[in-house]
This record gives sequence, C-alpha cells and structure tokens, in this order.
Amino acid sequence: MGGGLNDQRHMPRPESSVFGMLELRFERRLYGVMVVLGSLRMETLRVKTNRRTQLLDVTDEVADVVAKSGVHDGVCHLFVPHTTAAVMINEHADPDVASDLEGIFDRMVPHKGPYRHAEGNTDSHMKAVMTGASQTIFIEQGRLALGTWQGVFFCEFDGPRDRKLWVKVDGHRKP
Amino acid sequence: MGGGLNDQRHMPRPESSVFGMLELRFERRLYGVMVVLGSLRMETLRVKTNRRTQLLDVTDEVADVVAKSGVHDGVCHLFVPHTTAAVMINEHADPDVASDLEGIFDRMVPHKGPYRHAEGNTDSHMKAVMTGASQTIFIEQGRLALGTWQGVFFCEFDGPRDRKLWVKVDGHRKP
Amino acid sequence: MGGGLNDQRHMPRPESSVFGMLELRFERRLYGVMVVLGSLRMETLRVKTNRRTQLLDVTDEVADVVAKSGVHDGVCHLFVPHTTAAVMINEHADPDVASDLEGIFDRMVPHKGPYRHAEGNTDSHMKAVMTGASQTIFIEQGRLALGTWQGVFFCEFDGPRDRKLWVKVDGHRKP
Repeated sequence: MGGGLNDQRHMPRPESSVFGMLELRFERRLYGVMVVLGSLRMETLRVKTNRRTQLLDVTDEVADVVAKSGVHDGVCHLFVPHTTAAVMINEHADPDVASDLEGIFDRMVPHKGPYRHAEGNTDSHMKAVMTGASQTIFIEQGRLALGTWQGVFFCEFDGPRDRKLWVKVDGHRKP
Repeated sequence: MGGGLNDQRHMPRPESSVFGMLELRFERRLYGVMVVLGSLRMETLRVKTNRRTQLLDVTDEVADVVAKSGVHDGVCHLFVPHTTAAVMINEHADPDVASDLEGIFDRMVPHKGPYRHAEGNTDSHMKAVMTGASQTIFIEQGRLALGTWQGVFFCEFDGPRDRKLWVKVDGHRKP
Repeated sequence: MGGGLNDQRHMPRPESSVFGMLELRFERRLYGVMVVLGSLRMETLRVKTNRRTQLLDVTDEVADVVAKSGVHDGVCHLFVPHTTAAVMINEHADPDVASDLEGIFDRMVPHKGPYRHAEGNTDSHMKAVMTGASQTIFIEQGRLALGTWQGVFFCEFDGPRDRKLWVKVDGHRKP
C-alpha cells in the first residue's frame, strides 16, 4: 500500500472559514470531502461617536466583514458590548430618518427623571434596551442581505465615546 | 484496486437539508459518513396588509416553513427587509392583545412630530425600531417551539402594502 | 484486505456535543476526521419572580449553560416562551439601573389605558414587545462573551409568576 489516507496534515485548519474541503489522498488520487470545519470567531469593528445621541451608518463595515468571511449563505450576528448603545436596522437612504429617530428617542425617554442611578445616564440605558443589543441579518450569495432601503446603524445613546460592534458570521462556503 | 473511493458523484448535494449522509464506496462496500452539507437558503413569505398599523398573525406560515425544512432541532431566524415594518412574538390566543398593541404604538409615537423626513412616516420607522427587524425562534422535535400563548406577528406600521418576511432555518435533521 | 473502513460503529453519536471526531480505521491505522455531529437541544432555566415589573439578573445561570455545553466558539440563543415577559442585555454592575428601568417601563406604558384585552395586562404585553423575546449572545473561548458592564436579565412584566427562559447553544468544540 503506497500513499494512503494516512495523514492528518491533509486536513485544512482554516482560521475563519466555516465550510472547508477535506482532501483525502488514496493511491495517489485526490478525493474531496466537504466538511464543516473552521471557527465562528468574531470580528470587532471600532466606532467613534461624537454626539450624545447618534445613529451611525455602519452598513459598509459590516458588509465588508461578511464579504471577507467567504461565507456564501448563512447569518451575520451583531452584538453591542455596551449598556448605553445598541444596534438597529432601518432606513439609510434618507439620513433625515436617523436624525428624526434621534429626536424621538430623546423626547420619549426623559434625560432627567426620578432616577437612582448616579451616573445620570439612565435614559441612555433605556434607549439601548428599546433598540436591542443583538441583531441577526441573513447572508445570501455571499452578501449581507438587506432590504432596498435598509442599513445597519450603531446607536450611540451616551456619547461621544469610542465604541465596539462585534460581528460573527456563521454559514456555508460556496459548494 | 477496483471500485474505490473515487467519485465525487457519490456526494449528495441536497437543496435544502442541513444534515446529509455522505456515501463512500470502497471495494464495492457502502459506508456512510454523516456530514453537514446543504444550504441555509432563505424562504420568502408574502404578506398583504390592509391598514396603516396592523399586527398580522403569521405563525402558521412560519411553522410551515420549519416543518417543510426537515430540520429536527435548530433555530428559525426571521428578518423583515422593510424599514417601516417589523416582526414580533407575542400573544395570539386573544386577538384583542394585538389590537390593543396597535393602539399603544400609535399613541406612543406621534404621527405628526417635528420631523425632517419628507415622506411623513417617521413614526412608522420608530415603531419598527422599537419592535425589531429580526427574531430567532427555536426548533424542537421538528416543530417551531413557541410558548403556549405565543404567535409570530408581522408588524405593519405604514400600510396598506405588499410585504415580505424572510425565514431561514438552521439546524440538524433527525440523526 | 483486512481491517478496513468498514464499520458505522466507529461513528460517535454524541448527545450534546456539536463538534465531533469521526474515527476512520484503515489497515489498522487510525485516522481522524472532524465532523459536526450532535444536537442543538435547548436547556430550560426556571425563574421565580416576585413583583409585577421586575428585571432579574440571570447572567450566571446562562453562563453556566454555556460552560457546560463544551462549546468553544459559537452563539447562545435566548428565548422567552411567555407573552408578558422578555429578555434584555444591559448593565448589571449597578442594580440601580435595573430598578430605574422598571420605573421607566411603568411610566411609559400606562397600566390602565383604553384597552380591549380583558385580562388587564395589555401594558405587560407592550413592555415585552419593546424589550424582545429573543437575544443572541456570542461565545468566545468557551465563555459567554459580554461587555464589561453587561448582564442578562429576565424581564418580568406581569408577576409574580413562575417563568422559563430557554437557552440554546450552537457552535464548535475546541479543535
């Protein structure tokens, strides 16, 4: 018996891919077996905000993480690791919408309430809860799948600050 | 050496299954190896709304996508590709709840505010953000796993319109 | 031909692991192939609430499910199977934040409105919708990945009651 299905070195250990190709060599012939390998490691996007309440369009940055992942169909999970910020999906075609929404948030949740939290930003926490810390967007044909007018917004409710948005891509590479 | 593990045609390419069986033939014997193959392609549900603010029960339609997917345990991701609509999970046993919620949304977010967005539907965008564009529901024993009183609602905030709800099922077939 | 790649008994059928090692024996040599096997079964956490509106810190309980799952990188899905309760991610360092948020929810959504739902808890349903029934948190290095000040809260809006929080872990074991 020469050659042989004999070496774990043939197994790729991709760092970021989810769907891999396992190469099996037997009698000097190469056979491919698709297996799910790889990891679901997250990417961290840096966001710099410059107002107290600010909805920032980060669609391009998120789409870029998806494109680089090589995932063809799957999902893109977003998570904000802050308690006075959030992530939303809404219109980015007309920037007046984000601007209007900033105003509604500020009128709806009073900055000065009968609050116990000593930092004076209880309203920021409430706005973050109303918007949400996590979102899941689909990946179709290797691209972030959004509706025609939709974009992804990092929602700052206690800026200006340096913030992070965590992104995790899960799915299959192109068969 | 006859026969052999020599043909990629033995690899099934299921269109919708997530968990597949890879057949390996060697010396005319058949060996099965379970691998994750298939795709995580999304389904699109069509929704027709007939009021400006309307919470529509789409539980049966979503449950049907899950049942047809053949996935035994996993998750069902929902995504609304619109900026003035959303998806929520809440009571569908008593239709008065959805009706009450429609009223609360309309009283909580003023239709006519000091808004800049020229289309006059800024309130619709805000209601969509408060509710959320994405939800993830569990799949257990091949079925959409909801609490006793829960249903899935497509939330129209700027109808009447023809809308879409995207559904993506991810998980394992029955071993 | 002795030995051989001839036995399905070599395939592990783990009950709870997601990433498995498939052993292939050929000519008395052992080859390993990593495949995704296992199930995505959910865990149920029990929560006992003792006020009408109460945000309970359940971070430790959720982190414990993640640690026991053995998943190294992936996601942790949370789902509340009730229509007057929800799950949120926000500050748990200062308990005054949760206390303040309880007050904001109660002032923002009137308990007694012009409601049709006969049970008198329409406001509880609205608060649940504003907060959300599902959240997805990342798992990194075998741990629930939260920001410095973040915790997971079960949100009771119509207590006191005995409640459930569903948890589903999805991802890869350590390669």
